[in-house]
Amino acid sequence: MPIVLGPNRYGKAENRVVRIYRDQARHEIRDINVSTALRGAFAGAHLFGDQSQVLPTDSQKQTAYSFAKEKGLVTIEAYALELGRHFADTVEYVDSARIEVEEFLWQRVSAGGIEHDHTWVRSGQEVRTAAVTIEGHGDDQSATVIAGFKDLTILKSTGSEFAGFYEDGYTLLEPTNDRVMATSLVAQWRYVGTDVDWNAAYEGIKTILIEKFATLHSLALQQTLFEMGKAALEAYDSLAEIRFVAPNKHHFVYNLEPFGVENNNEVFNADDRPYGLIQVSVLRDELPAAPAAWDSYTGLV
Amino acid sequence: MPIVLGPNRYGKAENRVVRIYRDQARHEIRDINVSTALRGAFAGAHLFGDQSQVLPTDSQKQTAYSFAKEKGLVTIEAYALELGRHFADTVEYVDSARIEVEEFLWQRVSAGGIEHDHTWVRSGQEVRTAAVTIEGHGDDQSATVIAGFKDLTILKSTGSEFAGFYEDGYTLLEPTNDRVMATSLVAQWRYVGTDVDWNAAYEGIKTILIEKFATLHSLALQQTLFEMGKAALEAYDSLAEIRFVAPNKHHFVYNLEPFGVENNNEVFNADDRPYGLIQVSVLRDELPAAPAAWDSYTGLV
Amino acid sequence: MPIVLGPNRYGKAENRVVRIYRDQARHEIRDINVSTALRGAFAGAHLFGDQSQVLPTDSQKQTAYSFAKEKGLVTIEAYALELGRHFADTVEYVDSARIEVEEFLWQRVSAGGIEHDHTWVRSGQEVRTAAVTIEGHGDDQSATVIAGFKDLTILKSTGSEFAGFYEDGYTLLEPTNDRVMATSLVAQWRYVGTDVDWNAAYEGIKTILIEKFATLHSLALQQTLFEMGKAALEAYDSLAEIRFVAPNKHHFVYNLEPFGVENNNEVFNADDRPYGLIQVSVLRDELPAAPAAWDSYTGLV
Amino acid sequence: MPIVLGPNRYGKAENRVVRIYRDQARHEIRDINVSTALRGAFAGAHLFGDQSQVLPTDSQKQTAYSFAKEKGLVTIEAYALELGRHFADTVEYVDSARIEVEEFLWQRVSAGGIEHDHTWVRSGQEVRTAAVTIEGHGDDQSATVIAGFKDLTILKSTGSEFAGFYEDGYTLLEPTNDRVMATSLVAQWRYVGTDVDWNAAYEGIKTILIEKFATLHSLALQQTLFEMGKAALEAYDSLAEIRFVAPNKHHFVYNLEPFGVENNNEVFNADDRPYGLIQVSVLRDELPAAPAAWDSYTGLV
Repeated sequence: MPIVLGPNRYGKAENRVVRIYRDQARHEIRDINVSTALRGAFAGAHLFGDQSQVLPTDSQKQTAYSFAKEKGLVTIEAYALELGRHFADTVEYVDSARIEVEEFLWQRVSAGGIEHDHTWVRSGQEVRTAAVTIEGHGDDQSATVIAGFKDLTILKSTGSEFAGFYEDGYTLLEPTNDRVMATSLVAQWRYVGTDVDWNAAYEGIKTILIEKFATLHSLALQQTLFEMGKAALEAYDSLAEIRFVAPNKHHFVYNLEPFGVENNNEVFNADDRPYGLIQVSVLRDELPAAPAAWDSYTGLV
Repeated sequence: MPIVLGPNRYGKAENRVVRIYRDQARHEIRDINVSTALRGAFAGAHLFGDQSQVLPTDSQKQTAYSFAKEKGLVTIEAYALELGRHFADTVEYVDSARIEVEEFLWQRVSAGGIEHDHTWVRSGQEVRTAAVTIEGHGDDQSATVIAGFKDLTILKSTGSEFAGFYEDGYTLLEPTNDRVMATSLVAQWRYVGTDVDWNAAYEGIKTILIEKFATLHSLALQQTLFEMGKAALEAYDSLAEIRFVAPNKHHFVYNLEPFGVENNNEVFNADDRPYGLIQVSVLRDELPAAPAAWDSYTGLV
Repeated sequence: MPIVLGPNRYGKAENRVVRIYRDQARHEIRDINVSTALRGAFAGAHLFGDQSQVLPTDSQKQTAYSFAKEKGLVTIEAYALELGRHFADTVEYVDSARIEVEEFLWQRVSAGGIEHDHTWVRSGQEVRTAAVTIEGHGDDQSATVIAGFKDLTILKSTGSEFAGFYEDGYTLLEPTNDRVMATSLVAQWRYVGTDVDWNAAYEGIKTILIEKFATLHSLALQQTLFEMGKAALEAYDSLAEIRFVAPNKHHFVYNLEPFGVENNNEVFNADDRPYGLIQVSVLRDELPAAPAAWDSYTGLV
Repeated sequence: MPIVLGPNRYGKAENRVVRIYRDQARHEIRDINVSTALRGAFAGAHLFGDQSQVLPTDSQKQTAYSFAKEKGLVTIEAYALELGRHFADTVEYVDSARIEVEEFLWQRVSAGGIEHDHTWVRSGQEVRTAAVTIEGHGDDQSATVIAGFKDLTILKSTGSEFAGFYEDGYTLLEPTNDRVMATSLVAQWRYVGTDVDWNAAYEGIKTILIEKFATLHSLALQQTLFEMGKAALEAYDSLAEIRFVAPNKHHFVYNLEPFGVENNNEVFNADDRPYGLIQVSVLRDELPAAPAAWDSYTGLV
């Protein structure tokens, strides 16, 4: 059997673009890490080292920085759409473009009780993400937007059980009806279409997810995640599906009995490894799947 | 449209298992990070919090440690096959199991010119990886093995060009016929079948990849990667395909002209971000694809 | 000249203790990483392997967890004082104890506009730190408390200059009267005595530092740091000195001229390495120095 | 009491300089991360924002790159001495200079059994380090060199005990006469003078340390470290002192008894946190101490 070139993709990863809006005394800031990737007629580069159809990754970088001014960087979704369409529409030999963005969030500082015009501290609560996939040209062109966040570390100190589970010969775990449940959540949702108020949707969906995590009495992290996703899809018709990656960050009750100290779920060891790891998707039935939209280029999103 | 549960998977990630063979004075060591993941009839846990069909991730952990003794841990591929088959064959409700392993390599220490029996230093050259996917039961069961490595940082100080590329309005890059080419290589290859001498194949394939990187005069990192993959597939009939992820770790010639110092490709700035990023696969034509085999559970491999 | 044992210290590093207060429906959480280190009559362990005077690091760990309940964990400064005094007072052969703590801060979640009783998200704005040194026994015992934070990333988009600097033959830099100034600040301050309202002081000092960073028109990061420290010492008599470690996180104006795009300090490349790095202390004159208080055990603080 | 400026220092951290020697077909490579820091008459910058005596950190960066060609980069010790003396001797207002270097080691690739001329893989076994301190001017100038390594992960699977230790009310640990002992070693040694064959000394000292770790039957990690240091000082008259930082990377015997599986020190859990942490110095008595030499600027060494 002959040996052939399979699927391939290339681009510039992790451009650290910072955009300041300073038209008024009260500045605005956007701080992102953006990666661009192209698919297309690049077999020549692989088979013969022929670069004549390859746009340098350096040119992709220049474009990413320039578009932060030319097109603006108000929401990462709109910016990524501009960038992806540019590559698909104007660069010969490109069949599809993928743009992945991490956004680092900043919080305006107060000085003397008043919000400061041009000083912020980085807010570490979560990293907002977007991934845009542009496929094809002209009337056949499709655009898919995935938005979400990562690194949202959330914990509840009660209201979570783990009991009644399946047991095999390697099962030592004791059931519990009251445990700490914590995760560092990755959530990514796919929109139907691109006519979305990106910031409002982001804030609304994030709020729903957090509220459901807090208020649902949990019989399983799986159940919590499903209910979180279901609530988001029920509230936002623009959502086709949502996916979670949720490490179960174990908090083990520390045994203080040898020291005659009572520990009623008050002192825990927060362990590093291993950790439970749950991946789950919640989706609107009967909608077509979009596998290309989920084909990550970097570890960013 | 109804909202439904989509694909899901759960398990225990990053069990840090160390196995010492000490039957003889000359010990052997295996040091791994292993993750286990299960798919199956787990809808109840998501929809109703019903755990009765869910094997705890803690039980999966216990099994991973116990199998290092029960079944042995000589090669990560054989160990992962044992573990994956165990879950698929003996745990009710499991349809498929995925085992991912990182192996940290150790090098025996010399003392007085003689190899020491029970002391090693960690060799940081690369991390060896394996990912095994077991699907189905009984005669319909399939097992797919992907092996490879990550974090192999390799550099050549000449013998690499980048010229004749496509240019658009954002292209500032100058062509070069002599540059440093460096990457931190991820390589993963899929075997046909499981009747393989895992260690010999690993060493052989790794050697071929490194030699091709070294000896091919490179017109493009894309070309180098394709030729590396092609050479491995030509030499090993047991390989169905190989995939690379290769960041182009830029080494920029530092401008010393302002100081009257000549810099003939002698002093470089090794930049962190952004970096070019190439993903490419090389495959034997006419073989069926194996998408499930490439569906990573963790960032491990 | 004889070869002898020099200064030495040992302990248990990075105990990840989580304490939940759950006496009322509205829980409270404290989440810390604590390290303990002891100095004393431990020469026997080094010279002869004699452990008879060595309290195991495991026992130190047990104590750290148990004290989170026995003594409570309301402020990291008070907790570290309890722990340090315990080792110095009750463990034979111990001459001095050092306790270092990182505190990860959590923010209570709102659900339906109401603060939730037992759910939080991790707030990544900064990591609060403390380092307590207990030396000696009985009436000669001294206790020194250093408090502070790290990882406070702060940025101002104008109001910062860098001009009029010294130039040598390697100076290419152009002066600027308007630049982005950003740092990931480490601040540590030493208290006089231990009769301090730890939480109030922490919040007050942090606010002063941030406000000064925001409001001072900066001619140099050095100047900004000195004025920040001076303002804190002026406001808090309980402070003996304050030290800063401040990487100058460079934001380089991106050159968009080749594309005919104006960039009036609007688009920046946030570079990783290298970075300027400033270390500076501000102190109350005529107070005795406290070198032991600054002798870090881990990279924690 | 007046508030005054205390000790301060500034410079450029983490310049990633790569130097290729290519005068012959067989190239050589040096790959370093270098930081420069200056002390001197910089009060004006802090007190008034007056930069007229401040050499920009950018100029320090330019010098670090240029010196890799001008002065060469054969050993990091000699390179750091050149750089430090340059700042102290030629830059007005500088009283002392500190240069810290990490060196990433590369191993030449073999192709067809022959060492390749210009291709290497990064060897991750350890990171070599140096820290040079230059104080004063002219005849009063002193130069101190500390060399060493970090990240040397070393493990012995037997020949290590921990028993007979002191016990208090928090002691649960059982003594053991056979355990795995592992550490990720940091070793730093200070030379007397600068007339040293840097590479030979480095290799010789590293070999002695590793051999002693392997061959000494260990009653305590403390004992092992002391004997390692003593052996190095006995063999090298040019050494004034050596310091170790050694995390005790715990390998806990995994309990397989519930599964009826014997575990005779064969299967371990390699735990992350917490870890024992030992700091110890071994020194030649009667030599003057050199505290400035140990005043680290970055986390590099």
